[in-house]
Formats: sequence, structure tokens, C-alpha cells
Amino acid sequence: MNKRLLLAGLALALGSGYTLTAFSQAKPEQLVKQRQAAMTLQGKYFGPMAAMAQGKAPFKADVVAYNASLLNALIRMPWDGFAESTKDVKSAALPAVYSDHAKFMAAADHAKQAIEALVKVSQGGDEAAMKSAIGAVGKSCGGCHQNFREKR
Amino acid sequence: MNKRLLLAGLALALGSGYTLTAFSQAKPEQLVKQRQAAMTLQGKYFGPMAAMAQGKAPFKADVVAYNASLLNALIRMPWDGFAESTKDVKSAALPAVYSDHAKFMAAADHAKQAIEALVKVSQGGDEAAMKSAIGAVGKSCGGCHQNFREKR
Repeated sequence: MNKRLLLAGLALALGSGYTLTAFSQAKPEQLVKQRQAAMTLQGKYFGPMAAMAQGKAPFKADVVAYNASLLNALIRMPWDGFAESTKDVKSAALPAVYSDHAKFMAAADHAKQAIEALVKVSQGGDEAAMKSAIGAVGKSCGGCHQNFREKR
Repeated sequence: MNKRLLLAGLALALGSGYTLTAFSQAKPEQLVKQRQAAMTLQGKYFGPMAAMAQGKAPFKADVVAYNASLLNALIRMPWDGFAESTKDVKSAALPAVYSDHAKFMAAADHAKQAIEALVKVSQGGDEAAMKSAIGAVGKSCGGCHQNFREKR
């Protein structure tokens, strides 16, 4: 099997399926666990890039490209977990997630766009462009957390 | 930005970067949390496909293609979380994960191959082929859990 062709094909599926949910009918507690899992993994793959962009870790272009590609999958995963049914489950989500859901989803979409932009520049190998795009992703995360997540 | 080209590009990054780790120096407890998060999300996206393959849910080819593409990212995420440093952290991982790590990684690779095969057939839209490939993914998960995870 040609891995490059295969992966290109799956990427098209990822693109066309963007508006689909996971077709799951999970309980509220399970939805919260799943969305928190997605955030945990976003941290796993974004953290090292943030360290590189801030000069706290050696810059590695191949790691940026790899982590960005995984983030581009992960950024699609949390949002259906913020269903109305999860409103009363204990979590760090602020009431605005539910009362101003359109604004919340716009912030989520902003993060998706920032990650897609990072994926694009990470193909080119230009260090300054990658660092700048990593910074934009970090801002897009923080912008949403600022308004929709409890301070810890 | 051309989304199809963009996504094809990121898939190539995913392919070429397959052997990279997340470049993270996380604490053992954090590694366990991250690998469990990846398993939680594999369940989120595999569960609905398993239900379809077993005739317990209506078959939807576009959901299979979408979920398979996300699984193909998720299957790359847990393994660096089974580092030797996590040996003494409480989890369902059996000692064999560490004492027979090569066999464990071979089982993980088997799951990756089964998911790549599912991704490939999910592009074609043939229902029987997809259901069969979903079954093979399920077996590859179960084969690893059988030997390397505590029964619950």
C-alpha cells in the first residue's frame, strides 16, 4: 500500500467530514471526559511547539510539522462534547459556553484556522514563519480559555 | 487557502513524521494521563463504527470515513506514554507492557495497520468492505488489550 497516497486520501476525508460529529450518543459525564481528553492531547502536542517558539527548547522543524498534523485532527474533537446535556457536569467550562454557544464555536473555529495555517507553513520549513504561526495558535487557545474556562 | 491541498500536505507530514515522538519531557503521571486520553478518544471514534459493523446502528459511510481519519491520528498518540518511567504509576497496564515491550509495540503497530487499511477502504464507499475492516480494527484493539491490559 502506498502510504503517501493513503494518507493524502484520509486527509480528504478529514476535510470533507469536518462538519460531522462522531455520531455518538454518549452520557454527559462521558462527553466531558472525552472533551477533556482532547484538550489534554492538544496540550501534549502544542506544549513542545510553544517551548520552541519561545526559545525554551531547540527548534525542530520536523517535530513542528508532525505535531501540527496531529493537532489538526485533535482540534476537531472537543466541540461536540460541549453539548447542552453537559451543562451541569462539574468541569472548568464557564456558563458562557452554553449561554453564548455561537461565540464559543466561533472561538473554536478561530483555533482551527490558526492550526491549519500552522500546518501550511510547517510544510515550508521556514523557522520564523513557523514560530509566528505557533504564536498565533497559542493566542487562539488563550482567547477561548479567557472567556470560556475558569481561571485556575 | 485550498483546503484539499492543505490537508493532503499535512497528511504527508503525518506519514513522514510517524517515528517521531511528541518531543515531550512529561512526568510519569502526565504520560499516563495523556495515553489514557488517547485511548478514551479512540473509544469515542471507534465505538460508533463498531456499532455499525455489528448492525446495532445505521451504517453511514461518511461517518466511517471521518472517524477512521481521526483514528489514524489517534493511533499514533498513546505509545510514547508507555515509557519505562511510568512503570509504577497506577493504571490498567499489565507488567508485560514493560517486560515485553517489543511484543507490545508490535501489537500497537498491528492496530495502526488495521486502521490504515480501514482508512483506505473507507475512501471507496463499499459497505461490506468497510464493515470487515472495522471488525479487523476491533480485533487488533482486543488482541493488545488481551495481553497487556488488566481485565475489568
